[in-house]
Amino acid sequence: MSYQFAKNVDALQPSAIREILKFTGMPGVISFAAGSPAAEAFPVDTIRTISRELLEQDPILALQYNITEGYLKLRTELKQWMTEKHCFDPAMDDLITTSGAQQANELSCKVLLDRGDTMFCEAPSFIGSLNAFRSYGVNLVGIPMEQDGMDLSILESAIQQHPNPKLVYVIPNFQNPTGRVMSLEKRKGLYALACRYNLIILEDNPYGDLRFAGEDVPSIKSMDTEGRVIYSGTFSKILAPGLRVGYVSAPAEIISKITVCKQVSDVHTNIWAQAVCAEFLARTDMEPYLDTLRAVYRRKCQLMADGIRQHFSDRVTWEMPEGGLFLWCTLPESCDVSAFCKKAVEEYSVAVVPGNAFLVDESAKSHSFRLNYSTPSDEQIEKGIAMLGSMTKKFLANA
Amino acid sequence: MSYQFAKNVDALQPSAIREILKFTGMPGVISFAAGSPAAEAFPVDTIRTISRELLEQDPILALQYNITEGYLKLRTELKQWMTEKHCFDPAMDDLITTSGAQQANELSCKVLLDRGDTMFCEAPSFIGSLNAFRSYGVNLVGIPMEQDGMDLSILESAIQQHPNPKLVYVIPNFQNPTGRVMSLEKRKGLYALACRYNLIILEDNPYGDLRFAGEDVPSIKSMDTEGRVIYSGTFSKILAPGLRVGYVSAPAEIISKITVCKQVSDVHTNIWAQAVCAEFLARTDMEPYLDTLRAVYRRKCQLMADGIRQHFSDRVTWEMPEGGLFLWCTLPESCDVSAFCKKAVEEYSVAVVPGNAFLVDESAKSHSFRLNYSTPSDEQIEKGIAMLGSMTKKFLANA
Repeated sequence: MSYQFAKNVDALQPSAIREILKFTGMPGVISFAAGSPAAEAFPVDTIRTISRELLEQDPILALQYNITEGYLKLRTELKQWMTEKHCFDPAMDDLITTSGAQQANELSCKVLLDRGDTMFCEAPSFIGSLNAFRSYGVNLVGIPMEQDGMDLSILESAIQQHPNPKLVYVIPNFQNPTGRVMSLEKRKGLYALACRYNLIILEDNPYGDLRFAGEDVPSIKSMDTEGRVIYSGTFSKILAPGLRVGYVSAPAEIISKITVCKQVSDVHTNIWAQAVCAEFLARTDMEPYLDTLRAVYRRKCQLMADGIRQHFSDRVTWEMPEGGLFLWCTLPESCDVSAFCKKAVEEYSVAVVPGNAFLVDESAKSHSFRLNYSTPSDEQIEKGIAMLGSMTKKFLANA
Repeated sequence: MSYQFAKNVDALQPSAIREILKFTGMPGVISFAAGSPAAEAFPVDTIRTISRELLEQDPILALQYNITEGYLKLRTELKQWMTEKHCFDPAMDDLITTSGAQQANELSCKVLLDRGDTMFCEAPSFIGSLNAFRSYGVNLVGIPMEQDGMDLSILESAIQQHPNPKLVYVIPNFQNPTGRVMSLEKRKGLYALACRYNLIILEDNPYGDLRFAGEDVPSIKSMDTEGRVIYSGTFSKILAPGLRVGYVSAPAEIISKITVCKQVSDVHTNIWAQAVCAEFLARTDMEPYLDTLRAVYRRKCQLMADGIRQHFSDRVTWEMPEGGLFLWCTLPESCDVSAFCKKAVEEYSVAVVPGNAFLVDESAKSHSFRLNYSTPSDEQIEKGIAMLGSMTKKFLANA
């Protein structure tokens, strides 16, 4: 029996990093290839208490169907928090909870774009989002990243050149995979372009609360006077990703379409998890709590950075992030980064992700690779970076 | 600001039952319009115990990312149970857990159909699935139901008449909304048609375990020698719908595409809920447990049927279900069922769903309405059916 699949789905290729990820489950392999938050930072005791109380006091709430828009108490708590952060505008917006920010980003694409319409993303960008967009057959165009975000002049040319430009997808804070922050100037410039060319901006902010150095930059959503910004967030990095709770704040008309699409996708998000998030927000003074997370990420990032300084060839350039989960390294242009990453995992048992995996066209050239410091233990960071460092010296001696 | 939405999504209309559902939250309104399982049947104590042990013994499992295919222990338990029921073929199939059967059905459509391709469903059928299919812009064709399932001769003509026929969607057991069971003969006939015309069958079985009278009929999946049946199931009706855990069993090649699409939709299903389902299956002797549920549904259905016999006009025909959540009533052809349902909720404070809400074309004629007996309390069933009964007599006197 041979199956004929939908064109959009058939075109989804297995990721370029599959070969490397195959190794990450093997004993002895140290993985800097993941994107999981630090499990030691999960507020296990609080979640346990909230869950016990919920299942004792209101089990039917946790177990019966609920509305697609999301558990009312969670949305109320979230709106308040979002309003404080200027990521929710009570006069214009509505808010829906989603099954992770993944669903928020996927549905934003589904409601706005027809097959063949154009959307823009940073190049490189988050693979999960890129695949979500690909699954709707859109014309996905990567715009090169500079140190302070997407190159806006290239974006403007691309907007003029491509058919039906509709959406720009950006991760302004501690971007995946580069760890870079979009400057205030670029945020304003991007918003101005969106207004000029009638585009919607999808601002994905999974890491924004994990800033451990420098100063916060206002969200693009906070500049949105026209109703062009869809803001997506998640509890995955500040609470726990297994909960699968994210959210979207956007003008009510967009949220109403996202709600229809969410209803046909999974009816509503697991209600136990939504109740856990709601109670967590209600009981927790968030800034001091987030400071404890930031301390964990600051320390792990510093440990990795110290190792890099000590062990890496000085021909590897790298960028010290001010938050988030990732550190971006770049080899000299003469180097084949795919060969480097393959060798790293096969001969040195250290898994890292080659930069081309994050490009719209995975066969395009990249000289960078992504390191994750949130998932590995301190010991793994020290040992893995030392091994990777010794490899950079040998590999680059021959390059 | 005016938004331009994707064609597929823009075409999704607010449901015809919206007007009626607006009333169901009002004080004093008795709702037979829902589709929720009986909350008194939720195994609250067991779920509480499993949850407490999980969060004490293995909290990181419940809180960290997991794989898209689903929690391994749940899939292992499920495969064993599905194999016993001949709904999983170890030689050919694979199995993925989903965020409810809603996601299973939605993704089956997404992976197989391009916009404009044809799929067939029973007329009437489950609104949630119809909207999921509509959201991919497919040519959705309703095939009239007979007492023992879809009219296969009409189906065959429709297959010959429509472009790119790909998929047939059926709910063979205690169908939503009719409560009818597809006969063994029709199941075999449908499978033969699928083979003849190279179609895939999506067999949705949310209610199959809730048979409280009569004998089980073998699943279409159990006849599937060619690999043409996608079988979807759910824990919503046998455990609790708030968990949002469903599953799909299908040939591995199809599951692999569904997995890719699930990954871009929500990464994976809430892992706490998956672990609860896994442990529940592992600890529970399922047949005796299901018997306790069946007793609840049998009793509530009987209570409603008794009320109908006592109070309804004898010009209302109705069908006694052998399982599931719904009871299907039909008015004489001269009656306007929309007006009947509107009057029922507005003047008698009893909400029921008009049959046209379950049709591909909601503006088409229907003379039936759906009653749900699982959600209301015994008192609500007695009182609501008495009121509805007195209304049928007055309404039909004028019809």
